[in-house]
This record gives sequence, C-alpha cells and structure tokens, in this order.
Amino acid sequence: MKITILGCYSATPRTITNPTSQVLELNNQMFLIDCGEGTQVQLRRHKIKFSRIDRIFISHLHGDHFFGLIGLISTFSLLNRQNDLHVYGPKGIKDIILLQIKLSRSYTGYNLYFHELESETSELIYEDDKVTVTTIPLKHRVYTNGFLFREKPGPRRINIEAAKERNIEVCYFNKLKQGSDLLQEDGSVVKNAEVTYDPLPVQSYAFCSDTLYNEEMIPLIKDVDVLYHESTFLEQDVEKCIPTGHSSAKQAAQIALKAGVKNLILGHYSTRYPNIELFGEEAGTVFSPVILADDGKVLKFN
Amino acid sequence: MKITILGCYSATPRTITNPTSQVLELNNQMFLIDCGEGTQVQLRRHKIKFSRIDRIFISHLHGDHFFGLIGLISTFSLLNRQNDLHVYGPKGIKDIILLQIKLSRSYTGYNLYFHELESETSELIYEDDKVTVTTIPLKHRVYTNGFLFREKPGPRRINIEAAKERNIEVCYFNKLKQGSDLLQEDGSVVKNAEVTYDPLPVQSYAFCSDTLYNEEMIPLIKDVDVLYHESTFLEQDVEKCIPTGHSSAKQAAQIALKAGVKNLILGHYSTRYPNIELFGEEAGTVFSPVILADDGKVLKFN
Repeated sequence: MKITILGCYSATPRTITNPTSQVLELNNQMFLIDCGEGTQVQLRRHKIKFSRIDRIFISHLHGDHFFGLIGLISTFSLLNRQNDLHVYGPKGIKDIILLQIKLSRSYTGYNLYFHELESETSELIYEDDKVTVTTIPLKHRVYTNGFLFREKPGPRRINIEAAKERNIEVCYFNKLKQGSDLLQEDGSVVKNAEVTYDPLPVQSYAFCSDTLYNEEMIPLIKDVDVLYHESTFLEQDVEKCIPTGHSSAKQAAQIALKAGVKNLILGHYSTRYPNIELFGEEAGTVFSPVILADDGKVLKFN
Repeated sequence: MKITILGCYSATPRTITNPTSQVLELNNQMFLIDCGEGTQVQLRRHKIKFSRIDRIFISHLHGDHFFGLIGLISTFSLLNRQNDLHVYGPKGIKDIILLQIKLSRSYTGYNLYFHELESETSELIYEDDKVTVTTIPLKHRVYTNGFLFREKPGPRRINIEAAKERNIEVCYFNKLKQGSDLLQEDGSVVKNAEVTYDPLPVQSYAFCSDTLYNEEMIPLIKDVDVLYHESTFLEQDVEKCIPTGHSSAKQAAQIALKAGVKNLILGHYSTRYPNIELFGEEAGTVFSPVILADDGKVLKFN
C-alpha cells in the first residue's frame, strides 16, 4: 500500500502548499482521493500516470477538496483519454462538472460516470474482486464522507515443499488455494493447513477529512492499518473546531487510539502555525506512531 | 502601463507552464484578464495584492481561461475581502460560479457582480473617469471576446513659465487645463495653446485570445499601443488553425501590421514546439517589435 500526498494543507492553495489531494495505490489499483486546485500539476510533478486514474473520490464540495476536478477531467479529454472515469462524490458534483463541460462545449471523448452520494450512513460504493470502498460519514459544515479502502483476503498460499512431499499434482493447487482439503487417490486426506500458508494479510486505509471529532466513525475504522485524520488546529485553538467543523491534532490521535488503528497520518493543517512538527508532537502524547503528511511525501505500508 | 504575464500557454497547466492569465495596470488601476487554473498561486508568486483586483475579465469559457476563477473568488472570501468584485465574461459564467458557491455553502462576504456578455458586436462594458474597456468580438470555437483597455485623455498641462510671464493667477489653471482660452482683466485674450502643453499621451492595450485570424478586429484595435494576440501555432501547422479556432505567429503579426499597432505581444503557445523563440522569429518577418510573453514576465510601456 502506497500513499502519495499531493496536497495536505487546508483552505487556499499557496506557492508552497497545496490543497487536499492524494493518490492511494492498493493491490495494483490507483485511487485519487480529493482534488483541490492544482492537483493535475501535482500529479505531473510526481510523475503519476494520468491513465492509471480511473476512480476519483471526493469527500465534500468545499473548494480545497474539489476545485481541481474540472481541470483534471478536461485535461484527460485533451490528452485523448479512452478509458472510463468514475467520480464518487456528494450529490451536486455532477451538475457542477456537466454545466462547465456544456458551457465550454468541451465534451469528454471518454465515458464519465458520476456516483453521487447522499446517504447519511456508511455504504459500499465500490467493489471488485480485490478491493472494497465504503463511505465513512463525517461531521463537517457540508455533507462529507471519508472513505475506507480495504483489500479482500487473497487465496491461501501453497507450501510448495510440503505439497511435493505429499506428491500433490499442480492441478490441485487452485482447490487448495480456496481452502479445501484434498482426497488423495489412495484414500488418504491431506488437510489444507498441512500444505498451505495463510493468505497474505489484507491492508486497509481510512481517509477522514474534513471532520469534527466524531466517535461515531470509530466502529467503521476499527483496527485499520492506516488512518488519515484531519488535524486543522492544535489544541490551543480547539474552540475553533466546532464552528469550522474541524479537529485538533489531539482529537485525531484520540480517534486513532480508540479505533485501535495501526498508523495515524495527520494532515489538513491550518497554515497559521509556524511548523507542522507541532501537530506531531501534540498527537504523539496520545498515540503512536504518528506520521505527518506533507506535500510530495510518499508513504509505504507493508 | 504594466502587464504581468501570469500564464501564457495553451491548453493544460503543467509544472513549468501556466494557462492564460495576466494583470494589466493602467492609470493606477489593476485589471485581471482571464484566470486559468492556478492563477491565485501565480498572483501570490508575483506578489500582486489580491485586494487591488476589483475587476476580472474572462474572454471565453474554455478551461484554460477560467478554471481558476472559482478558486480566486473563494480565496477572496476566506481572506475576508470587503470590497466589491466585478466579473465580466460570457453568459453562463454566473451560473457556473453561483452553483459552486451554493453547493459548497461558501457565500462570499463581499458583493460579487457579474456582467454577462453576449453581444456579437463590440460594446463598452466598463468606464470610469480615466479608463474605458470595450469588447473585441473574436472568432473561436465558443463565444469569445477580446478586450480593449484605453485611457481617457487627461487634462492639458500648464506651461508654468509661460503662465507666469502672462501673470495668470493659479485659480485659472483648471480652466486652462480643460482647454479654454482666457480673457484677461485688461481685455486681452490668452490663447490656450500659448500657456499649456498637450495632455500626456493616452495608452491602450488590446488583449485578443483565443481567435482565428480575423481581419474584422482591425478597425477596433487600430493604432493601439500594445496588442496581445494569440499565436498557438507556427505557420508550418497552419492547417490546424481553422479547426481549432487559433492563429499562427505569422497571422498574429499580419493583424498587428494591418492595424498599425505599436507593439505586438505573442502568447498562448502550443507546447508542441521546442522553444518559444520560434514564434518570435516567424512573426518578426512580418512585424516589429514582437515581444514574447512568458510566465512571470513583466512588460512596461511608457
């Protein structure tokens, strides 16, 4: 699992900070999460192939999370993209994009599908044979979802040496990978566990931005490998959290602790603070390990 | 007159090139012309005060000329802008911006006025005591206007020495500045021209992008001080001009020549060519002086 942070600062793009966008690579698939202004340039800067992005997830319709979407969709067209593009985001996102496409008479040469979200409870919004994506309802000033990306368990893995010892033919391997025991020609039974290893562990990533401190998300993100939780403020400014619908670094860490996640990534920093290490220090008093997102950072988890 | 080129490349923003946007300073006023994605970051990079921008002119609704507008409007709000903002652009621009403001529930704290354009002939769209702005209808794939910014003539200037010689009181200077002759108390008449100089020369700037080669614009831009004319292609690719609605560098120079302008700025380059000097060389065979726009370039004209 690999996460490339294209931008992780709140509010307005500046010369040295970018609004929210990140690329998740999970099981050889690439997912773009949020798309603030300038995301297409950040994708180029980090040499991420546009053609690998087939699914874009937008948390909410504040500008710093989606103003770059129309530009990316438009650039895909100019580059003669052929493969389908799926956009998942709050109801209204389709109208915003299609109005601009219509008025600019810049219709896409590829199929563009919108999956508009309006459920107030968690729902499965994407599934294939390797991955599921479910929403994490968040509490913010407008309708907002986080997203939980989770690998499906793979097949059991053959213990080649043990299989050889028992003279098992290769043609039975698929059956073993599915977990079955094996009836041999001599009538004996090979127990699956004797000749296979467990599947590789699955990985999971929860993206939660923007949100108030909200314990309702905890059951949804229980035990995930990596949680990205916004931390717009430090605790010294915690009174700003409720009116703005944001969290402090300490609150993010409390959620991570209560959900028993393995790693916490912080981001969506307000630029009022002199350096982002302050967020790490504050969250570190509650939870470990804390990873500080920063623009251009690539985070790998095995 | 000062022109800051924030971006002058066609189509998609890249790490090293920006889509169209420029700031014109004329008679101590600042006008933003076009607003491709990333314009707000370019404004910051070039240290242009956001609060000085009160009027934004959008030529047409292709993304590389306006996708940065919603972000700029939104950032103005986040920075607690108070003064009014006026946006001039094709019909539809208001719907695009207001839909996004509505869905993000990010209403501006300042007054935002839209002046939607749909005339097929040139019209006066802004006037104050020092400057006029008129449209220059262009031929492109969608409804497009160029803009002609023109200073109004200032007052005549007093020739102080000549006025002293004739014992003219200071209280008559305003009358002289307006061009009147002066009846002295002894019955003699002082001719205006004897004690004044002509007004300072007025300056004019015509922005024409995007457009096909179009001689119809010539009477509108006749004798302007500076013409910015798009040159997306070189003559070797002139067959691309008609289907895309663009011009070659040579065609831009032909317009400049026929309109008798004083200076030609080229821009809106396709990134297919190895360097932009090729545009200057081609245009230079027809017209002089040719100035090549480039991102970050500041051009001054006296």
